[in-house]
Amino acid sequence: MSSPTSFQDHTRTLANAIRVLAMDGVQAANSGHPGLPMGMADVATVLFSKFLKFDAANPTWPDRDRFVLSGGHGSMLIYSLLWLNGYPKITLDDLKGFRQITSHCAGHPEYGMLPGIETTTGPLGQGLANAVGMAIGEKILAARFGDDLVNHKTYVFAGDGCLMEGISHEAIALAGRMKLNKLVLLWDDNHITIDGAVELSDATDQVKRFEAAGWATRRVDGHNADDIAAALDWAQNSDKPVMLACRTIIGFGSPKKAGSHKAHGEPLGADEVIATKKALGWPSTEPFVVPEEIVAEWRKVGSRGAEARKAWEARKAASPKAAEFDAAQIADVPQATLDALNAVKKKASEEKPAVATRKASEMALDAINTTWALTIGGSADLTPSNNTKTKDLVDITPEDFSGRYIHYGIREHAMAAAMNGLCLHGGVVPYGGTFLVFSDYCRHSIRLSSLMGIRVIYVMTHDSIGVGEDGPTHQPVEHVASLRAIPGLKVYRPGDVVETAECWADALSDKHAPALLVLSRQNMATFRTTHTEENLASKGAYVAADAEGAKVTFLATGSELELAFKARDLLAADNIPARVVSMPCWALFEKQSATYREAVLGPNTVKVAIEAGIQFGWDRYIGPNGAFVGMHGFGASGPAKEVYKHFAITAEAAAEAAKSALKG
Amino acid sequence: MSSPTSFQDHTRTLANAIRVLAMDGVQAANSGHPGLPMGMADVATVLFSKFLKFDAANPTWPDRDRFVLSGGHGSMLIYSLLWLNGYPKITLDDLKGFRQITSHCAGHPEYGMLPGIETTTGPLGQGLANAVGMAIGEKILAARFGDDLVNHKTYVFAGDGCLMEGISHEAIALAGRMKLNKLVLLWDDNHITIDGAVELSDATDQVKRFEAAGWATRRVDGHNADDIAAALDWAQNSDKPVMLACRTIIGFGSPKKAGSHKAHGEPLGADEVIATKKALGWPSTEPFVVPEEIVAEWRKVGSRGAEARKAWEARKAASPKAAEFDAAQIADVPQATLDALNAVKKKASEEKPAVATRKASEMALDAINTTWALTIGGSADLTPSNNTKTKDLVDITPEDFSGRYIHYGIREHAMAAAMNGLCLHGGVVPYGGTFLVFSDYCRHSIRLSSLMGIRVIYVMTHDSIGVGEDGPTHQPVEHVASLRAIPGLKVYRPGDVVETAECWADALSDKHAPALLVLSRQNMATFRTTHTEENLASKGAYVAADAEGAKVTFLATGSELELAFKARDLLAADNIPARVVSMPCWALFEKQSATYREAVLGPNTVKVAIEAGIQFGWDRYIGPNGAFVGMHGFGASGPAKEVYKHFAITAEAAAEAAKSALKG
Repeated sequence: MSSPTSFQDHTRTLANAIRVLAMDGVQAANSGHPGLPMGMADVATVLFSKFLKFDAANPTWPDRDRFVLSGGHGSMLIYSLLWLNGYPKITLDDLKGFRQITSHCAGHPEYGMLPGIETTTGPLGQGLANAVGMAIGEKILAARFGDDLVNHKTYVFAGDGCLMEGISHEAIALAGRMKLNKLVLLWDDNHITIDGAVELSDATDQVKRFEAAGWATRRVDGHNADDIAAALDWAQNSDKPVMLACRTIIGFGSPKKAGSHKAHGEPLGADEVIATKKALGWPSTEPFVVPEEIVAEWRKVGSRGAEARKAWEARKAASPKAAEFDAAQIADVPQATLDALNAVKKKASEEKPAVATRKASEMALDAINTTWALTIGGSADLTPSNNTKTKDLVDITPEDFSGRYIHYGIREHAMAAAMNGLCLHGGVVPYGGTFLVFSDYCRHSIRLSSLMGIRVIYVMTHDSIGVGEDGPTHQPVEHVASLRAIPGLKVYRPGDVVETAECWADALSDKHAPALLVLSRQNMATFRTTHTEENLASKGAYVAADAEGAKVTFLATGSELELAFKARDLLAADNIPARVVSMPCWALFEKQSATYREAVLGPNTVKVAIEAGIQFGWDRYIGPNGAFVGMHGFGASGPAKEVYKHFAITAEAAAEAAKSALKG
Repeated sequence: MSSPTSFQDHTRTLANAIRVLAMDGVQAANSGHPGLPMGMADVATVLFSKFLKFDAANPTWPDRDRFVLSGGHGSMLIYSLLWLNGYPKITLDDLKGFRQITSHCAGHPEYGMLPGIETTTGPLGQGLANAVGMAIGEKILAARFGDDLVNHKTYVFAGDGCLMEGISHEAIALAGRMKLNKLVLLWDDNHITIDGAVELSDATDQVKRFEAAGWATRRVDGHNADDIAAALDWAQNSDKPVMLACRTIIGFGSPKKAGSHKAHGEPLGADEVIATKKALGWPSTEPFVVPEEIVAEWRKVGSRGAEARKAWEARKAASPKAAEFDAAQIADVPQATLDALNAVKKKASEEKPAVATRKASEMALDAINTTWALTIGGSADLTPSNNTKTKDLVDITPEDFSGRYIHYGIREHAMAAAMNGLCLHGGVVPYGGTFLVFSDYCRHSIRLSSLMGIRVIYVMTHDSIGVGEDGPTHQPVEHVASLRAIPGLKVYRPGDVVETAECWADALSDKHAPALLVLSRQNMATFRTTHTEENLASKGAYVAADAEGAKVTFLATGSELELAFKARDLLAADNIPARVVSMPCWALFEKQSATYREAVLGPNTVKVAIEAGIQFGWDRYIGPNGAFVGMHGFGASGPAKEVYKHFAITAEAAAEAAKSALKG
């Protein structure tokens, strides 16, 4: 290390405030991770005090630099920074109450819980991939509004865990390809994981790896302020994304635990906390004591960007694009888009096309994309199958971000996480496609969309054994059920063009929940042949065909609605009146009144559910006397119609199931 | 390319048989992927005819080289190879019936459907990670039985899709760290993906990337037999895993579609098939015609290894380890292990320890690992949390594979897929741990364990809001439900040491299904205080406490059994007799007779389910008049007990729910 300088001393003093708060917070909670905040405190201090463009008093300033702590277990780092810099809401009591239900300082940083937390992190690698999405968002908005209004960086702290996770590969390769030169990753190169030394499980040359992915790299002494500053300075004008390999010591300052995995995920111990404070030359050994002058120095850091923010506000106010910019930030779906979707419905009810719902989704997207410039489409290399690219969408390329379509590559996980980042960045409304069976590959990012309550839209096609010839590996049977299980996620499985347009309208109208459209490969008939202005799908389920004196109710979704209607006809021929209920979205149906739900389900009828997936979850609606026509295991390879017959998912089987159930 | 040689001509002729069959198969099915088999045919031919150690007539020869087609969409490559080489079972009619229900040639290669298919592939990247597991398996067995009995390679074909997927990063880093020098990856470097050119979405320098991960690399002209052979020759004595970047032309031979993404995933068209055959100089333009002399040449290839296999059989027969070797291949759980687990049960029933089930699992593993040498443990860098490393297990290191514990790194996906590979390789019984919430990260590999029907055991700890302080990102609430949805997967959630030992015994006893143990972080009381020789958990559910004239049945799993017993006491105080049913494994319960199931559930009682997860799936058991005490959304950060209270998952709440339900 180079010899101390005044900048080094100043940085170290400020950084020690982070170390002290992190140690104390974890110690008070008797739970948490002191090692990362203590190791990365110097790097964070240089970043915040010299480089990060922010104004703590205005944490939603759209042109702020984004800071993402991908290793969310080091949450005391971000909580300390938020409090020291003077962000709104957070109090010293929150820090003291770290990891308690009453505190805003949850175990891991949670988006929406405190201003300044840009994304929920903890599941490793997610934050890094979110940051890639944010950096893409910046580029898109800069292309639209110019550097005057949009010109910020995205900084992300990532540790060995983040870099070992598969999602990191997808994310850094995507960033490299897209030449996201305003993205700066600071790797906490501390040589330690939970099991022990990194070398127990990894021997990757990370610098070389990032270079192979098209990044600029540089090694940094993570405890030398000048070296950190020089590297960040160098990073400012890169033409590639930047990875700074910051060699740090986990738990820096702790006499007994620094450099050891014992500093990672447990309190240092009361004695060691005191010993560390002494070793750091901290003026107090009492918990949560930060001298006023140090707080004051930090608060200066927190208001560093106030002038820049004001200047930006002035530029925006003077811009001819001010209104457009603000509208993009709010991102309410325009009435014109809803009208266009309504027109799609009307036309479909009249013309009754027999198309796959993936095609129906494309028709809805045509209406959406031509009336709302905020949507950013994409696919994980299944564009021609997912029907996600409408005719007016132009590719985004590394050289030109004025387009609206992203080729995410064969990277479902990074696509989902980048869409989270795009949405969190603001100014755009991301949707992206893959095969439903590969929802498994990005499931955790979908979960995080839900946990954060953000409007990310997943377009998942090839939704059942209707995939046909590709066989069991590509035929989702349990996926609809398993996705319905994610709290807050709106899983839609529409049954024709009309319902598909309705589901899209509903998805776009809700800014606080993600949506996942489950769409068929194969064609299906239009059953909504009478136009309604009302969005019926938004009730989650509704009566699609009634019958006087009904004895049977068929409950169906998507491609199986066609079978339900045929089964109804078969029963009618036997003088058994039957109803059909379409259930495109269970999550929405559960939000309806008990009266509505009971009426829709048909209280005095036998219920028969038809869905080309497994029964799991359906018992709630069919009850103990109902029946289920669907899958009971994995699928088979063959033409779709034959596979349906093979598994007895037919109108005849549904009619027979109803008759048996009626016999009891 | 260098000038043609006789080897080149010979190879090309044999390879063209693959091309012809692949084109014809896809054309007949009107579905499939001709591009990969046509592009990689020359590489495959050199590999099979010169290097791959195999004897087609004996496809389960334990010391055969493994061949994995990670890009399973190119399945006609492997089907053609199997038929041409003379593997058992597969017929020309199977090839003609490609992708039909009646054929053994499914859309993607399915393990168990045809001899010679080493693993089910199709979901990209999985085969590559399976191959890493197979190569680890080889090293472990070689360390145990010596080079005389175990000395084979693992070859894997992988395309750009496989290499873009995140799992590839985890797998190649793991392979690099473990120095799996008998693993050879042949990259189908064809510059094409479904959306178009690879450069649309990727600019990775793959050679550099693999080198960064510790692999040896070499560029190969994938249509030059000498170059391919030279590279494979070079690969034989590497001290690192080997990646050969085989530059190929997708759809090689097709005059109009070679080199284009149009050759990737659809039939070439009848005319183009004929044109291609002419361009290749093929003697017939009729479908599925391979001249007898070419078939005969291929059959010679298929029997190349017969002598080597016989010599191996002789060596094995003469080996003092022959019986041990054979037993390891069969891998039936020893009676001694089941006895040891029974002893764990007995001791626990007597001593009634209050421990977490993750600790209970460690106690079971102690019994298992000391009585059965075949188990190979591991964790995705959560060893001290998952309790997966028992005291007698020694780490496997790159230098010494005689140990039995793998530090998989922070790589859940590769761990799961490598465990699939270990199991498929044979001779070992893999188990591996992570936090339950991160089952999302490896979900697709778990699905493939189920689809293949293989005994891989997942140890998933920190199973609910009982995680406590780490908060919602780390608290699984929907995971148990979503895993129960996977067909064939045995999800166990045991409630004390006794049940945990029973679940382990059941998991080990079934060679044809994966198991996933859902285990608590927090302690819980022993409720199985009377020893039974019978494995009650293996029935899936059973009556844990009965009551005369019972009005209520509490259904519970895992840590909530304790609450069920307390709730039963509370109701008893109010003179309401209640039963407790433990339901550790729904999948097993569903296999019991209807009579058993009805009796266990208690036909004339109100059912109240208690589980610290969501309700999804429980309606099947509680019915329309029952109640559910559990989670209704994401969790919260705080000490576990407080979080339980916060969400009203308490004995009191369960008793109240029962009373309300009784009132109707």
